[in-house]
Amino acid sequence: MLFHVRMDVNIPHDLDPIRADELKRVERERAQELQRQGKWRHLWRIAGQYSNISVFDVADPQELHDLVSTLPLFPFMAIEVTPLCRHPSSIHEDER
Amino acid sequence: MLFHVRMDVNIPHDLDPIRADELKRVERERAQELQRQGKWRHLWRIAGQYSNISVFDVADPQELHDLVSTLPLFPFMAIEVTPLCRHPSSIHEDER
Amino acid sequence: MLFHVRMDVNIPHDLDPIRADELKRVERERAQELQRQGKWRHLWRIAGQYSNISVFDVADPQELHDLVSTLPLFPFMAIEVTPLCRHPSSIHEDER
Amino acid sequence: MLFHVRMDVNIPHDLDPIRADELKRVERERAQELQRQGKWRHLWRIAGQYSNISVFDVADPQELHDLVSTLPLFPFMAIEVTPLCRHPSSIHEDER
Amino acid sequence: MLFHVRMDVNIPHDLDPIRADELKRVERERAQELQRQGKWRHLWRIAGQYSNISVFDVADPQELHDLVSTLPLFPFMAIEVTPLCRHPSSIHEDER
Amino acid sequence: MLFHVRMDVNIPHDLDPIRADELKRVERERAQELQRQGKWRHLWRIAGQYSNISVFDVADPQELHDLVSTLPLFPFMAIEVTPLCRHPSSIHEDER
Amino acid sequence: MLFHVRMDVNIPHDLDPIRADELKRVERERAQELQRQGKWRHLWRIAGQYSNISVFDVADPQELHDLVSTLPLFPFMAIEVTPLCRHPSSIHEDER
Amino acid sequence: MLFHVRMDVNIPHDLDPIRADELKRVERERAQELQRQGKWRHLWRIAGQYSNISVFDVADPQELHDLVSTLPLFPFMAIEVTPLCRHPSSIHEDER
Amino acid sequence: MLFHVRMDVNIPHDLDPIRADELKRVERERAQELQRQGKWRHLWRIAGQYSNISVFDVADPQELHDLVSTLPLFPFMAIEVTPLCRHPSSIHEDER
Amino acid sequence: MLFHVRMDVNIPHDLDPIRADELKRVERERAQELQRQGKWRHLWRIAGQYSNISVFDVADPQELHDLVSTLPLFPFMAIEVTPLCRHPSSIHEDER
Repeated sequence: MLFHVRMDVNIPHDLDPIRADELKRVERERAQELQRQGKWRHLWRIAGQYSNISVFDVADPQELHDLVSTLPLFPFMAIEVTPLCRHPSSIHEDER
Repeated sequence: MLFHVRMDVNIPHDLDPIRADELKRVERERAQELQRQGKWRHLWRIAGQYSNISVFDVADPQELHDLVSTLPLFPFMAIEVTPLCRHPSSIHEDER
Repeated sequence: MLFHVRMDVNIPHDLDPIRADELKRVERERAQELQRQGKWRHLWRIAGQYSNISVFDVADPQELHDLVSTLPLFPFMAIEVTPLCRHPSSIHEDER
Repeated sequence: MLFHVRMDVNIPHDLDPIRADELKRVERERAQELQRQGKWRHLWRIAGQYSNISVFDVADPQELHDLVSTLPLFPFMAIEVTPLCRHPSSIHEDER
Repeated sequence: MLFHVRMDVNIPHDLDPIRADELKRVERERAQELQRQGKWRHLWRIAGQYSNISVFDVADPQELHDLVSTLPLFPFMAIEVTPLCRHPSSIHEDER
Repeated sequence: MLFHVRMDVNIPHDLDPIRADELKRVERERAQELQRQGKWRHLWRIAGQYSNISVFDVADPQELHDLVSTLPLFPFMAIEVTPLCRHPSSIHEDER
Repeated sequence: MLFHVRMDVNIPHDLDPIRADELKRVERERAQELQRQGKWRHLWRIAGQYSNISVFDVADPQELHDLVSTLPLFPFMAIEVTPLCRHPSSIHEDER
Repeated sequence: MLFHVRMDVNIPHDLDPIRADELKRVERERAQELQRQGKWRHLWRIAGQYSNISVFDVADPQELHDLVSTLPLFPFMAIEVTPLCRHPSSIHEDER
Repeated sequence: MLFHVRMDVNIPHDLDPIRADELKRVERERAQELQRQGKWRHLWRIAGQYSNISVFDVADPQELHDLVSTLPLFPFMAIEVTPLCRHPSSIHEDER
Repeated sequence: MLFHVRMDVNIPHDLDPIRADELKRVERERAQELQRQGKWRHLWRIAGQYSNISVFDVADPQELHDLVSTLPLFPFMAIEVTPLCRHPSSIHEDER
């Protein structure tokens, strides 16, 4: 099932830059791995902001939480989750 | 280019039901036509709300406005537009 | 899976009282039927407000939407949905 | 009586990690003890957030305050309290 | 126990004036009766607004809801409820 | 005259604990002195929060400011002031 | 004493125009009378809005309420009141 | 001098359509006249919304108010005004 | 011309106290100088808050910005600016 | 195409002043270079605030993001982006 997730990243300016870079590197690897698995179905940058809009395809809210809360930047993100379903005007049987 | 659009529909309770049904019927036809043209790339219902989250693929903000502002339910929708671009961690060359 | 739902009811003062009463009567029947089916797991009144806080146990966001959007008072409710999962400090294996 | 409580945890990034872990460990023990006593009736994780939604069953607002304000993470939580009562459409005599 | 209640009144301009006056008259009688019973412990007007700040002394949230939701102006009020308890710096044993 | 005051306390986690305790001790003494003088007429704890709701009885806004802005925790409080007056439905001649 | 008051006027479009004009005429007379009495000390239009920012000089919050709540447009105004006092950096002994 | 103005138009659905069209026609003529006079320096549509972002070049806030408050759609617009000045990093001597 | 300005001061608790006192001393001198020049026409303290409400009388938005942005406490203030003009119900020809 | 961008700058008070000055110097150079290239079409200071309102003329949201996210002060700015298009009442064929 699909969940729409907005993530706004806010890394404190006094975080050690080496640690910050390492967090970002692992975050990127993890994001790409989840995309390849089909769990992180869409990943867009919001133009002009250190934010993304994503759509996750997971088994249930538990899996969504497990994926999102273990992202390296999770402690520095404000996250908003919106559950999605098929729109009755969609031309696709399966909205995924 | 891609624009993320959230539409919250609020039809006044004293609108003539026949007119409301006609507006919804034409809205649906228009939404499906735009999907078939590839302009209305994604269309999801927000679970539990008379709202959708959409992604439009248009030539520019002008085309986005022309498409959205001529929807039959436009006068009864609160609309929020967010420009998107490719995320640097995306595994796709072209995020569309 | 569980979804936390808050519903704030706002019936327009110029709605026909007989229609309003009928809507409330059917809403009540539907709410009780869904409780008996185990879909509407919790239903509380917020003290001092024409609002409720509910927890639904459904198969997916689609079923949640189908249940909530067909409630008779749906057009007159502001609805907020929050997906839930098991808390790691819970003493129950299954949080439902 | 029942109180709906939402807790959003925000641990400062420059808090000593050892102290943070100790706070979380004691918080967990305390939460489980209160669940076993029946005071902390429901405890759910909000999917995708370091937040929980809880329902407490206490004698009065004073007991609620005593329980919540002595949680180890209390200084790092934004807390919202909503008093609940039985919903007239509930199928249970006692909503607890 | 004590609940702090703020009520903002907003009577629609197209409500029949005779009905509005009758609602206000009964509201006033009911408010005074509840004050005499000691249930409506404090009742202040917010200067410059059609609003009041009140403190109710009730047995539980259920009684609070029963009192507030049966006020004649209830359908036209935005209501905010805050549970209170004794402040540790109070000079009174019983804050009521 | 009466002013309704809400104070939300937020002590920074990196404030020296000895200084914080001293501030709280003096705050408490000052609050009790003002209560005995009748200036700080009501003082309630908001259940579940490090906040209070108070009613001050002062000569004018200047006295209110002098009292509140010299509280030891003033630099760490968000404060909201609402002027009150007698409610026309009050059963008391003098609302104080 | 001084109170800062912001008034945002919102006259419903379906109010009888003759009644609206009469309300505005009496409002204007009343505003000018209160200015001549020195009660309505300052009265500014906010540029670009049907709103004003005012400073009232009254005996207490009760007088402020009596003046403001009897303005003919009171039912159609959102009103925000802020109590003022002398600023310690003012060059005037009496800020009024 | 320059003022940034955002206007959000919200025409009630029960306004007579002939009157609405006449208001829009006169609004358009007035907007074009003010553009030709150089008073309404910039006028953009916000993509996807019945809103505009404008920059006015006027003698003072009074002239801004006189221009904006006499627009035919003024009663149906939410308006936000922001005063502008030259940015120190601008490459132009005169930002207009 | 007149601009209404609200300033909310928030000095970080870890700012060096000697520097903070020096900033406040110079701020006060500057505020008094601008009052004597007639530029800072009104200066009120908001009762109960480390905030002021001011009215500036300046040649244009540029002068307002130059005055406000060079105040020593500017980096620690949230500032809200509202342009004012004469109210049509004012009894004065010149509202200044 | 045009994007309206508001940037609110908030430099932490404990950032090294030399680094802050260097960031501002490079920011200024970059802003002027982008203006000369015609990418940063308008740049205004908001009077009384450490904020600007800008209009960018770019090829697409990707270019907007690349320009804005590489500004030296980007980590210290809250940024709001609004896509613009030609207004139907504009007197210019090309609104740019």
